[in-house]
Amino acid sequence: MKTSLLSMITAFMVIISIQCFAQEVGQVERLVSPEVSSTNDVTFRLKAPAASSVKLSGNWMPMVPNANGQGASRQLVDMVKGDKGVWTVKVSALEPELYGYTFIVDGVTTLDPSNLKVARDGTFRTESLLYVPGKASELYWAKTGPKGTVRQIWYDSKSLNLTRRMQVYTPPGYDDSKDSYPVLYLLHGGGGDEEAWPTLGVAPNILDNLINSGKAKPMIVVMTNGNPNQAAANVVTPVIPASDLPVGGMGSMLFEKSLVADVIPYIENHFRVKKNKESRALTGLSMGGLQTINTTFENPNLFSYIGVMSMGFADMSRFGVKLDVSKRDQQIEDLKKANPKLYWIACGKDDFLIESVVTMRSTLDKHAFRYVYRESPGGHTWTNWRIYLSEFAQMIFK
Amino acid sequence: MKTSLLSMITAFMVIISIQCFAQEVGQVERLVSPEVSSTNDVTFRLKAPAASSVKLSGNWMPMVPNANGQGASRQLVDMVKGDKGVWTVKVSALEPELYGYTFIVDGVTTLDPSNLKVARDGTFRTESLLYVPGKASELYWAKTGPKGTVRQIWYDSKSLNLTRRMQVYTPPGYDDSKDSYPVLYLLHGGGGDEEAWPTLGVAPNILDNLINSGKAKPMIVVMTNGNPNQAAANVVTPVIPASDLPVGGMGSMLFEKSLVADVIPYIENHFRVKKNKESRALTGLSMGGLQTINTTFENPNLFSYIGVMSMGFADMSRFGVKLDVSKRDQQIEDLKKANPKLYWIACGKDDFLIESVVTMRSTLDKHAFRYVYRESPGGHTWTNWRIYLSEFAQMIFK
Repeated sequence: MKTSLLSMITAFMVIISIQCFAQEVGQVERLVSPEVSSTNDVTFRLKAPAASSVKLSGNWMPMVPNANGQGASRQLVDMVKGDKGVWTVKVSALEPELYGYTFIVDGVTTLDPSNLKVARDGTFRTESLLYVPGKASELYWAKTGPKGTVRQIWYDSKSLNLTRRMQVYTPPGYDDSKDSYPVLYLLHGGGGDEEAWPTLGVAPNILDNLINSGKAKPMIVVMTNGNPNQAAANVVTPVIPASDLPVGGMGSMLFEKSLVADVIPYIENHFRVKKNKESRALTGLSMGGLQTINTTFENPNLFSYIGVMSMGFADMSRFGVKLDVSKRDQQIEDLKKANPKLYWIACGKDDFLIESVVTMRSTLDKHAFRYVYRESPGGHTWTNWRIYLSEFAQMIFK
Repeated sequence: MKTSLLSMITAFMVIISIQCFAQEVGQVERLVSPEVSSTNDVTFRLKAPAASSVKLSGNWMPMVPNANGQGASRQLVDMVKGDKGVWTVKVSALEPELYGYTFIVDGVTTLDPSNLKVARDGTFRTESLLYVPGKASELYWAKTGPKGTVRQIWYDSKSLNLTRRMQVYTPPGYDDSKDSYPVLYLLHGGGGDEEAWPTLGVAPNILDNLINSGKAKPMIVVMTNGNPNQAAANVVTPVIPASDLPVGGMGSMLFEKSLVADVIPYIENHFRVKKNKESRALTGLSMGGLQTINTTFENPNLFSYIGVMSMGFADMSRFGVKLDVSKRDQQIEDLKKANPKLYWIACGKDDFLIESVVTMRSTLDKHAFRYVYRESPGGHTWTNWRIYLSEFAQMIFK
């Protein structure tokens, strides 16, 4: 009790001191938002006395077809103006998950200024984050227990003539051990970069939690930048030479080549890793799924564990991407002969790319190519990719 | 020319493919904002057809006293509504610097949705970032050339009974060398955390650039979390046990003790570092300046290079912080005897803590304690702290 009282007093002093300090440096008054109840009801609040309309947009909300018949938009929820110009809405019993949300103030999308949890979804958007606790999201938290290290590393990519950045996760115990480890190469999607998996993907926490509970083998995870025209995520720190291109390079095969020619040799020369096929895994989502397909077709004996997330044999021409598929039948036969221990395909049943997965599966079936298929609810979302990573990591290097 | 044409076509294809892809995943139309001209005029744009007022708030703008006589606020600039509901303002010839800015839409502070460069200033705010190029900001850019590595490391703090996170920068060449390096311990301010110096502080780029140009010695830089009640920045990744306290602990001496008892031994056991006083430097800003003063007074023989930024002998009682200064005269004499190679004090002349620096200097002068004083224009700002880091890093380990 004594300690508890002392720590309460300390806590109170800290709050007072920071609030006074904040006034000196110009902080604004902050509401409690979002507020998560014990039953996972969530209340959102925004002070906007002069606004005529405030709506909530959260990525748990359903998409509805647009009035003009083209595309779909999220079904927004109106917030209600109350005392002192504070707009409020309460959402009932959200499922445990890591969500993104924004407010729409008189038509303009804004973050929740009361919430400092913010994440960027590649070149698409920046959103406020909401963690709803529970079984489905417990893997995403940094829990007590041993933890891995994430390194932001610059390496020379000779094949792209760029010094580039990647993020490398080493598992708990790596720095104090003499063991060699297997390596998972983990690729992001179109619009993303090397910061996607460590932030929105929560890969370091997922791996720490799976490894600490004995559900996954200790492994190194390499999170590259899959845009061959980009040195690094050019977001907080400007990078020279800075590319003005948004990102991309799907179908160019340039990233796939640099992964094999530059990234894997760098990792195998700078980390204590097992340098054989059985100790290499490759998986990626969307564009990274395409890069996984391409890389393993071109290099059938490099990886024993292969995971394709939310991507299949897509006709990418509607995205302006031309793929050379003339060698595909031969490539499938070559990979079949190489006999990887796992070829895993995962897709959401509402994913806009699900048809490409149907095509891929029927093509592979014609070749009697062995793969495991995992279909989940939902679409082309980080919710699915976090789940897929947590499942794939438990199946490899065993 | 051939390569150039090919790369232009590739670039075009990439843009098309990402834009089409973005429509599929629900991206919104994006304006060019901010647009920096060759003469550093900057145009800001926001689409807000339904808004009745849009203002620009940038941290280059002057503070003006509030109408009620209490405190000061930034002098906002009105934006003007034009075609298709796009609000615009052009700011002339901004000085080269890294700025933060926001839009105020009908009274609500929002980020610039066209700009994905976003940074969090501790618990205070999240802002859109604007880099204006030129001599004063060239140290902040990731240039071509060798680069250091930043590690996010979890370590056991026995004295705080927490597994905590810090960020450790190793200089270009560290991983391929057998040399031992000196270490700079670099502390953030109140409201900040271990992500402050690597993001808003741009410390990795500043160090890379100074080391590569021979202006600073190769060194390791340790960026801790200075809030003794906090395991790690609890922003993108929730941390269990999560503290509900905003941050703080000024005056508790708990962080200072853990720095000496936990952080320095961890670094000296896990990195190739020179383990002597002449190879240790300590500097910090604001709360981190206070922690620098406290740590070096309590441990006069630990650091040869000491830098106090934007802090002095402050009366912290107005912030609810009680400091025990009964031993100060003796501590000054002890540190004087220890004879550090550099005791550096830096402050902006408009800093709200400048009086504490005046008090500190006159107290040190009474003891004929040798220090170097650097006064800069401006106030309690990241502009000053980036400049101070770049100056301090050039004076140490020489």
